[in-house]
Amino acid sequence: MQDTKNRLTMISQNPIIEIIEKEEKGVKYVEHKEISKAVISRLPRYYRYLGELLEDGVERISSNDLSVRMKVTASQIRQDLNNFGGFGQQGYGYNVKYLYTEIAKILGIDRQHNIIIIGAGNLGQAIANYANFEKRGFIIKGMFDINPRLIGLVVRGIEIRGVEDLEKFIVENEVQIAALTIPKTKAPEIADRLVKAGIKAIWNFAHTDLVVPDDVVVENVHLSESLMRLSYRVCSMQDREAELASRKREEVH
Amino acid sequence: MQDTKNRLTMISQNPIIEIIEKEEKGVKYVEHKEISKAVISRLPRYYRYLGELLEDGVERISSNDLSVRMKVTASQIRQDLNNFGGFGQQGYGYNVKYLYTEIAKILGIDRQHNIIIIGAGNLGQAIANYANFEKRGFIIKGMFDINPRLIGLVVRGIEIRGVEDLEKFIVENEVQIAALTIPKTKAPEIADRLVKAGIKAIWNFAHTDLVVPDDVVVENVHLSESLMRLSYRVCSMQDREAELASRKREEVH
Repeated sequence: MQDTKNRLTMISQNPIIEIIEKEEKGVKYVEHKEISKAVISRLPRYYRYLGELLEDGVERISSNDLSVRMKVTASQIRQDLNNFGGFGQQGYGYNVKYLYTEIAKILGIDRQHNIIIIGAGNLGQAIANYANFEKRGFIIKGMFDINPRLIGLVVRGIEIRGVEDLEKFIVENEVQIAALTIPKTKAPEIADRLVKAGIKAIWNFAHTDLVVPDDVVVENVHLSESLMRLSYRVCSMQDREAELASRKREEVH
Repeated sequence: MQDTKNRLTMISQNPIIEIIEKEEKGVKYVEHKEISKAVISRLPRYYRYLGELLEDGVERISSNDLSVRMKVTASQIRQDLNNFGGFGQQGYGYNVKYLYTEIAKILGIDRQHNIIIIGAGNLGQAIANYANFEKRGFIIKGMFDINPRLIGLVVRGIEIRGVEDLEKFIVENEVQIAALTIPKTKAPEIADRLVKAGIKAIWNFAHTDLVVPDDVVVENVHLSESLMRLSYRVCSMQDREAELASRKREEVH
């Protein structure tokens, strides 16, 4: 009993915990394992490289070969992948297909996720047109906009609807994820409606921080912040090069 | 002489070093300060909040008030901003406009950056249509595509050109940054051409890792990886909730 309570506390504290189902002597049990955010954030990249290897017909790969391809140390690869129960075998390497499938399970992309896109402008349409999302189980069920000129149009088989139908559509289509590609001024109100309608995850492209309950996940893609980081990096490099050049001139004189 | 050499080594090792210009008793000098990547990655968010405060007519703000707005601890705010020479004053707080301007300088968005967009599809057009980039000094000089149906079209005053003009255009327009919104199969070849033509930074939306020389900066925006992280987070939350519910049922029985 005590044990159960401890585990409940652990679960409700909301760290990233992988629940691994195991079977031993015919008895099924689950094992909890805490996985760092850094490892999780690297998994999609592993998934991408493994997918490319599969396409190239590669069946197995050593951590060293994967290391050369991915430009990460072999020891980091081994450490990262050991988190999920050691898929590699000494002297054999990783079974590419198995690892690819296991990472897909961990990332939850072996399940189907129903998505809607709010905001049918260029960015919303870019997402709707990206067929690869569907291969990974992300099914775009509908698009919404407030612009009457867009409502009724069809993008890759998906009809653009008015936002007045939002709540009904979410329930009827078991939508789980909403991509928000609308201006920041409209985003908070729409986010509230989405949450009330049962949306569990918001992929937020609006340039603002959304306030949502604890059981709703928000993943931000703030393009202008990404561009500023790029600007910072290119400026510091230029400043360094300019200084380097000026010091070299000083040394010559 | 020894001193100069040491500093040169430090500079060429490529960490993130802020060069702060100072003046003391009429003599100008530069001071190098190493700043963690984590701090830099948080600066655009500070910039956004300070911009909103400015729009609201707020002239000064304490680290505590900023902390409530931004949902970060006041002590983290103080630590972060102290990296850039302590803009805050005890009992007065931060001068919003001054801090906003200083962060803009650090991020390099007080300078003009000329950008081109390669790939005039939905994503490229979404970027071209985002007027806010220009307010921050990112001037979109041109767009390029290989699709003859797009070449010649004009997006927000910007003509779409064929990629055969790429190199000439980059030199003539002093282009520094290229946004790459093309399929991953075409990206490596175009990236090579960009680098040879003198591009110093690539904002890469293609779903592949680019290989570039050390003095070229690449900032990746991999949308499908972002969506996988979202999927992971929503799935782990659901798994936890399901387990929590099942344990509660067990306790009742």
